[in-house]
Amino acid sequence: MKEHVPEYLQELPSGGIVTPKEFQASGTYCGIKTAKESLDLGIIFSKTSATGAALFTTNKICAAPVLLGRKNTRGGKLRAVVVNSGNANACTGERGYKDAEEMALITSKLLAIPPEEILVSSTGIIGKHLPMDKISAGIQQASASLGNTPAHGRSIAQAIMTTDTRPKSIAIKIKTQGKEVFIGGICKGAGMISPNLATMLCFLTTDAKISADLLHTCLVHSAEQSFNRITIDGHMSTNDTAAIIANGASGVEVTSEGAELSLFQKGLDYVAGWLAKAIILDGEGATKFIQIFVTGAKSLNDATKTARTIGDSPLVKTAMHGSDPNWGRIVSAAGYAGVELDEANTTLHINDVLVYEKGMPASFDHATLKTSMQARDIFIKLQIGTGDYSDTIRTCDLSKEYVSINADYHT
Amino acid sequence: MKEHVPEYLQELPSGGIVTPKEFQASGTYCGIKTAKESLDLGIIFSKTSATGAALFTTNKICAAPVLLGRKNTRGGKLRAVVVNSGNANACTGERGYKDAEEMALITSKLLAIPPEEILVSSTGIIGKHLPMDKISAGIQQASASLGNTPAHGRSIAQAIMTTDTRPKSIAIKIKTQGKEVFIGGICKGAGMISPNLATMLCFLTTDAKISADLLHTCLVHSAEQSFNRITIDGHMSTNDTAAIIANGASGVEVTSEGAELSLFQKGLDYVAGWLAKAIILDGEGATKFIQIFVTGAKSLNDATKTARTIGDSPLVKTAMHGSDPNWGRIVSAAGYAGVELDEANTTLHINDVLVYEKGMPASFDHATLKTSMQARDIFIKLQIGTGDYSDTIRTCDLSKEYVSINADYHT
Repeated sequence: MKEHVPEYLQELPSGGIVTPKEFQASGTYCGIKTAKESLDLGIIFSKTSATGAALFTTNKICAAPVLLGRKNTRGGKLRAVVVNSGNANACTGERGYKDAEEMALITSKLLAIPPEEILVSSTGIIGKHLPMDKISAGIQQASASLGNTPAHGRSIAQAIMTTDTRPKSIAIKIKTQGKEVFIGGICKGAGMISPNLATMLCFLTTDAKISADLLHTCLVHSAEQSFNRITIDGHMSTNDTAAIIANGASGVEVTSEGAELSLFQKGLDYVAGWLAKAIILDGEGATKFIQIFVTGAKSLNDATKTARTIGDSPLVKTAMHGSDPNWGRIVSAAGYAGVELDEANTTLHINDVLVYEKGMPASFDHATLKTSMQARDIFIKLQIGTGDYSDTIRTCDLSKEYVSINADYHT
Repeated sequence: MKEHVPEYLQELPSGGIVTPKEFQASGTYCGIKTAKESLDLGIIFSKTSATGAALFTTNKICAAPVLLGRKNTRGGKLRAVVVNSGNANACTGERGYKDAEEMALITSKLLAIPPEEILVSSTGIIGKHLPMDKISAGIQQASASLGNTPAHGRSIAQAIMTTDTRPKSIAIKIKTQGKEVFIGGICKGAGMISPNLATMLCFLTTDAKISADLLHTCLVHSAEQSFNRITIDGHMSTNDTAAIIANGASGVEVTSEGAELSLFQKGLDYVAGWLAKAIILDGEGATKFIQIFVTGAKSLNDATKTARTIGDSPLVKTAMHGSDPNWGRIVSAAGYAGVELDEANTTLHINDVLVYEKGMPASFDHATLKTSMQARDIFIKLQIGTGDYSDTIRTCDLSKEYVSINADYHT
C-alpha cells in the first residue's frame, strides 16, 4: 500500500475496469435492492478470448456462486463476470447452486460465450433465494448496455455495492519497452470484512497477455499483501471473491522469464493495495485508517496473527476511534494472540512516539500524541522481541455508526 | 448456569463474601479513582488459617500481582486478599512487581499473617505505576475497618468495580448431613472480558474444610463451566484472577472420598455460574444475555471454538442488539471458526424457532421471532453435523453504549 507512485506506473484519474483494451462493462437496476436509485446487477466482458484466475473465501459456509466459480475458473479461461448485489445466494442449498448456474447460462446465451468462461458472483443478504425473474431481466438489460466509457466503468462499480458509501474504482498504465499495459479494478466492502479474503468482491481486468497459471500466481501474490491483510470486523464472509481477466489486447506478453513480469506484478500489487485501502477507508462507520506493523516475531505467521489480533480487538478499535493512546489495550491484545512474545523485549510506538519500551511504560507527551491521533491515519508499530519476522494489517476503528448500520440492518 | 436452584442449596438474599463463618472484609476509598464516592481498595480476611486456590489469566502480558499471585498461591495456604481497583499494575515491569510485593508486606504486618498467605490483586488502567502512598494508607484504613456484616460484604464488592454498573455478590448455604456449609463470592467485569479467564476478578470464600489440592480441582471445574465460557468483547485481560479461600470454620470436611464433595462442587458451580452470568448482564453497554449452544461437533474443542467465534462476531452481536434474526451471520461465523462443519447437516434454531435446516433456509414467522428476541434472553442453538460434542458460550450484545464507554474512556 505504497502512497508513492513509482515512475513506470501511472494512475489514471477517470480510469476503471474498462480502461484496459477490449473490455466492456455495464451496471443496471433490476429490482433486487429496494432503493430504485441504486444499481444491483452488472456484467464485465472481454470482447476477445482471455485467461483468468480467481481466489475465493475460505469460509466453510460458502455461497453457491463461490462453489460454481471454483469450478468455472479451474480451466483458466475467463471472459465475463456477471454479478448481483442485494442477495448473496449463500446458505441456499441446491436451489441456490442451480440459480447460479442459470445466471451463467443466461449470460452465456446473450454474450455468445461458453458458460464455463463466466464467473458468477453475488453479494448481499444471506439465506434468501435469488429472484430469478428479476435477475434474468437484469442480465438482458446489462448485456444490452455494455460499453467502455468511464460512465460504464462507474455503473459496474456501483452495481456491486452493498453498505459501501462510494464506488471503488482504479486503473493504472504500465509502460514497458515502449508499449503500454493497463490494469483496471473495482471492489466493494464494507462489513463482514476479514481475511482470507474479506467480504469483498474485487474484479480486475488487464490487457496483458499472460497464461492462466502465471496470472493466478500474480493474483495470489497481490492478494496476500492487500485483501488478506485487512480486517474491518473480523467476520469472514461466505462470498469473498477476487478475480482477474487478462485478454492480451495490449499485445504485451508477460511470461515467467520476461522482464515484464516484475512490472506487471508491481502494477497489480499497486491496484490491489489501492482497492484494499479503499475498502478500509469506506468500512462501516469507519473514521480512521489504522496500520498495525508487528516486528520481531518468530515467524511470519506469528507476526500476522499478532497484528490481526490487535486489529480485531474492539477495545483497540474503540480507543483509536477516541484518538486515545491507550497502549495497554494494544499490548494486552498481543499477549493473547497465541504467539511467542517476550514482554521484557516488547516495545510499542504509536505514530512514531515511543509509549512502551521493553516491558515498561515510557514517558511521552500525552496531549501531543493524542493530537496526532486525531488525524485519519494512525500507525502502530509493535516489536515483540522473539525473532526477525514482521507483517502489517490494515484496519479501521469501531464507531457507534458501525453498531447503527449493523443493528438496524434488518433481515 | 442453572436457573433452577436445587433443593439442598439455598441462595441467601443478603449474603456475600463474608457469609461463610470466620470471614471478614472491608472496602475503602484511598484516592486511586478520581470519583470520591467510589471505593477503590479492599481486603478479604479469614480469621483462622485456611487453604486456598487460584486461577489466573493465560495472557502472555500479565500484571505484576498475577505474577506474585502465582507464586503465593503455590503453597496452598491463603488467608487474605488485598485488592485495588482503578489501576491494574500491568505492563509496569520490575517496579510493578515490587509494588505488588509491598502491598502484601503492608497487609501482612497489619493482619499479622505471613505475606505468602496473601493474594494481591489489581484492576483498572494498564501501564501506570501504583500510587503506593495512597495504597498504603488505604490498606491501613481497610484493615482497621474489617467486619462481617452485609454492609462489609457490599463494600468489598464495590471496591473491586471498574466500569461495572453494580456490585456482584452472592452467597449460598449447602445442607449436608445435618450440617451447613456456606460459599460466598464477589466478582467484577465488565469489559476486556474473554476466556481464559475474563477481566475479571472473582473472589470466593467458604467455611468448608478442604485441602488446597482438592479445592484447586473444584475451582478449575467451576471456572471451566462459568468464567471460561463467557465473552463480552473477545479481549483477554492481563489481570484475570479467580481465587477461593476455605477456612474450615463450618466443621464440615470435604474430601475426595466423601459424599460432601459432590454437593460442594455443585454449590461452587452454582456460585461461579451465577457470578459469570452477572458479569455478562452487566457487560459494557449490554442489553442482552445470549446463550450460544453448539451441538454435533467433532470434539469439545470444536464445539467451544465455534460457539466462541459466534459469540465474538461483532456482526452477530449487533444483530442481537437489534433483535434481528439475521441467522446468516451466525451460520457464516461458524463457517470461519476453523473447525469441521458439514453445511448439509447444519441446522440453526433461535429461541427454539427453526430458521436454517440442513443447509437450507427454513420458513418461519419473522415477526413472531423478532418479538421474542426483544426480550433480554436469547438462545441460539446450532447443530454442525460432524459429531457428538456440544458446548455453550454466554455473551452479550454490542451496542453504541459499548463504543461510548470505550472510546470515551481516556488514558
